[in-house]
Amino acid sequence: MDYSKMKPYDVRKLIREEKITTPTAGMCAGYAQANLVILPKELAYDFLLFTQRNPKSCPILEVGDVGNRKLNYLGKDIDITRDIPKYRVYESGVLTGEYKNIQDMWRNDFVSFLIGCSFSFESELIEADVPVRHIEENCNVPMYITNIDCVSAGIFNGKMVVSMRPLPYDQIVKSVLVSGDMPKVHGAPIHIGNPSIIGIEDISSPDFGDPVTIKEGEVPVFWACGVTPQAVVMNVKPKIVITHSPGHMLITDVKNIDLKY
Amino acid sequence: MDYSKMKPYDVRKLIREEKITTPTAGMCAGYAQANLVILPKELAYDFLLFTQRNPKSCPILEVGDVGNRKLNYLGKDIDITRDIPKYRVYESGVLTGEYKNIQDMWRNDFVSFLIGCSFSFESELIEADVPVRHIEENCNVPMYITNIDCVSAGIFNGKMVVSMRPLPYDQIVKSVLVSGDMPKVHGAPIHIGNPSIIGIEDISSPDFGDPVTIKEGEVPVFWACGVTPQAVVMNVKPKIVITHSPGHMLITDVKNIDLKY
Repeated sequence: MDYSKMKPYDVRKLIREEKITTPTAGMCAGYAQANLVILPKELAYDFLLFTQRNPKSCPILEVGDVGNRKLNYLGKDIDITRDIPKYRVYESGVLTGEYKNIQDMWRNDFVSFLIGCSFSFESELIEADVPVRHIEENCNVPMYITNIDCVSAGIFNGKMVVSMRPLPYDQIVKSVLVSGDMPKVHGAPIHIGNPSIIGIEDISSPDFGDPVTIKEGEVPVFWACGVTPQAVVMNVKPKIVITHSPGHMLITDVKNIDLKY
Repeated sequence: MDYSKMKPYDVRKLIREEKITTPTAGMCAGYAQANLVILPKELAYDFLLFTQRNPKSCPILEVGDVGNRKLNYLGKDIDITRDIPKYRVYESGVLTGEYKNIQDMWRNDFVSFLIGCSFSFESELIEADVPVRHIEENCNVPMYITNIDCVSAGIFNGKMVVSMRPLPYDQIVKSVLVSGDMPKVHGAPIHIGNPSIIGIEDISSPDFGDPVTIKEGEVPVFWACGVTPQAVVMNVKPKIVITHSPGHMLITDVKNIDLKY
């Protein structure tokens, strides 16, 4: 089956039936996908404030009501405990399991945060003929912990994590304009060029994801990354936090193009 | 003294000394001004979520730390209890007083919300030669309660309040593009033309502010308004809420042009 041409509702149904348990990259072309962080209500104010203060790394697409598995904006008939192919549960900062659904773990004090994802601006880059190396090389985007402090909020603080895409000189300005048009999915790059300026000593050794080829004459371009909020939550080691498993995102009914406005 | 050419820090000093107690429109040209809502922490999560769900009417510029009178982003050495010319205190939904400072009322559980203001996009409209009628007529902008439901969050819900500026046909597109570039200060209009479509029956009788002349051939253009969050808070009648007095805003160190990015 070609999932790229299917509608989000139909693919989410297959995910709910656990017929799809793989990463969602490339599914439902044109539609936004979202990162998930579930926290108990007692941590929700500080976390929401953290995302407000760090909108480039934590662009919130929707926050669920306390205790409610449904979402109102991102899609029809979503059950956040079943509509993601793979979940991770962390207890006191330790990964304690991966699950195809979290129905039995849901609590009345849980709040779901859905956060924008770079898939959305990458699809616009590709549309604009800007090359995206990790897609060409069929691997995960390289991600790095920088020396840039996030603005702290309550108990949450940490360094910004960035993703990197190497670009030829004549594509850099276009990449800034195309992604800058989409502030709800990380927006414009936060740095262009010399990695050491943002505290990255070895560009060939990403902290997360896979290294990619940087061709002669290409410049590394860095975007704020949705791994930042996860990394920041892990710092705090809450008793429980549930996230999507990397690459296994929520496929929404919202088109990438609608995230421009 | 020509306050329009002074720096925000210097004008805030005069405000703190209670040498300025007037509305702040026109002061410190080029710098953003902000609406204030102070709520106890127990209401802060619902209110922050309300602003996240209604970004056009409630564009948050900064949220203070719980109990802290200082701000970090909007300006140097701000004391939120003294740096606004006039405050209003509402208890259980009733205006109980206007004050030149609120030092003695500050509590350790208070949270300050600073919300973007239409002064910022109006100064850009004027720069772009788009006429702003209420400034020409030297009165307050007309504001209307619409039939558009805000997205509710916890205890907060209500209708969107809009401000209206009448424009000739050949200025409408420019006004959309200029204000649309500034999503942190209400952004693009939410409606153009026939007022009854958004529930406004009599354009000559605004719910807040003053009526303005609509010349032959002009079209009313409506923007989401920063009065919305105040109106919504009043609905809930919290035991205590403190706001700025209308027109008496916080003058920030952030330039309007920096609110574009």
